[in-house]
Amino acid sequence: MLTNIRIVLIGTKHPGNIGAAARAMKTMGLRQLYLVNPVEFPSSKAVAMSSNADDLLAEAIVVNNLEQALSGCSLVVGTSARQRKLPWPLLAPRECAELMIKHATTQTVALVFGREDTGLLNEELDRCHYHVTIPANPEYSSLNLAAAVQVLSYELRVASLNEPVNHEPLDDEFALASAEYIEKFYQHLEAVLYRIRFLDSQNAERIMRRLRRLFSRTVLERKELNILRGILVAVTKQLD
Amino acid sequence: MLTNIRIVLIGTKHPGNIGAAARAMKTMGLRQLYLVNPVEFPSSKAVAMSSNADDLLAEAIVVNNLEQALSGCSLVVGTSARQRKLPWPLLAPRECAELMIKHATTQTVALVFGREDTGLLNEELDRCHYHVTIPANPEYSSLNLAAAVQVLSYELRVASLNEPVNHEPLDDEFALASAEYIEKFYQHLEAVLYRIRFLDSQNAERIMRRLRRLFSRTVLERKELNILRGILVAVTKQLD
Repeated sequence: MLTNIRIVLIGTKHPGNIGAAARAMKTMGLRQLYLVNPVEFPSSKAVAMSSNADDLLAEAIVVNNLEQALSGCSLVVGTSARQRKLPWPLLAPRECAELMIKHATTQTVALVFGREDTGLLNEELDRCHYHVTIPANPEYSSLNLAAAVQVLSYELRVASLNEPVNHEPLDDEFALASAEYIEKFYQHLEAVLYRIRFLDSQNAERIMRRLRRLFSRTVLERKELNILRGILVAVTKQLD
Repeated sequence: MLTNIRIVLIGTKHPGNIGAAARAMKTMGLRQLYLVNPVEFPSSKAVAMSSNADDLLAEAIVVNNLEQALSGCSLVVGTSARQRKLPWPLLAPRECAELMIKHATTQTVALVFGREDTGLLNEELDRCHYHVTIPANPEYSSLNLAAAVQVLSYELRVASLNEPVNHEPLDDEFALASAEYIEKFYQHLEAVLYRIRFLDSQNAERIMRRLRRLFSRTVLERKELNILRGILVAVTKQLD
């Protein structure tokens, strides 16, 4: 289950933090590391900080954008230090781990970490089904990036040790939709909403975000998404 | 409750790890840091790695031995990466945190971490009531010192958030014995056991360790210890 969990680090500034994160992952049995636009990688500083986890660095996949990093993933969880203006489905680390491990028995899931200083951008957080916040000291909540990876990887490991091994094949009827397919749905939806003049340049960003939030909370299944896209196609056909 | 928890680092080699540990503590609301024979402290490297947790470094107390670091503490838990030959009462991090928080509502408790490379010595582990092991990947269990402090501090914070605040004054009848007083008891016990020729230079170490383990498991109360010492005094008096 742990090998189906992908750790995604976005825009990491210090290569030492990538190495320390790899070490944290490996101590907890995680292996899949994706790096989105790291400032410096590969790097000898990363190798030095990884201790003997440099095998994870050698296997790490570097990509240019979050979409590529989430390729093939169903459930996506983003880390966030604080609640945002628009409240998103929010998990505590323990709940987050239990949920991710449950999905990871059959599918690839992703846990996304932002930049050391500014975290994840709003548009990146919008791409996540859930957000997870480590319950830190409100007067000093600045966990080091690798320390945050350590805490959440630890919870994932504990949850995996508690989860009974599931040998049943995935029930195709209820398989989750992939992140790519969900993204295509949002593009399709936005286009159709513009076409029916529900959206305009004034309100589009706000409304699309609310819609993403709504669908994120449900964690869409593939067959449900087929239905939604079928509706969009039907609307378009009628307009044509 | 969290301010009644003392983090004790023994023989830390790299000052950067002390700074990173202070940062990890502060993010979780812990403040009491004791350093036993650090190789380099104070240190600018420690300050650099502490981010804005240098106030904890300024307040940190440096001592020459573990006894001084445990002064005034009742419950003492030592971190250990692996089970030793002589099995000691062993806690998972979550149980450890719940137990420590329970005691910390009224008393000072200590969580002890060893050297980066070799951990705690057997004689140091013998001074602890319990051991705690982070359930790491058996093929790569090498957590960075500050990462281990982060995981256990995180569990302590989560346990403190779950614990109802206890305003009842400590019932003196069942107050725990202090670490110093327990140590004096072991010295007294060992002397008496030599005197009655139960111990000799061949078996003393092994037997005293088994006795420590036995009493550690019980977490002795002060009044119980008074009784035990009373027995030792009585034995000596009879022999005289």
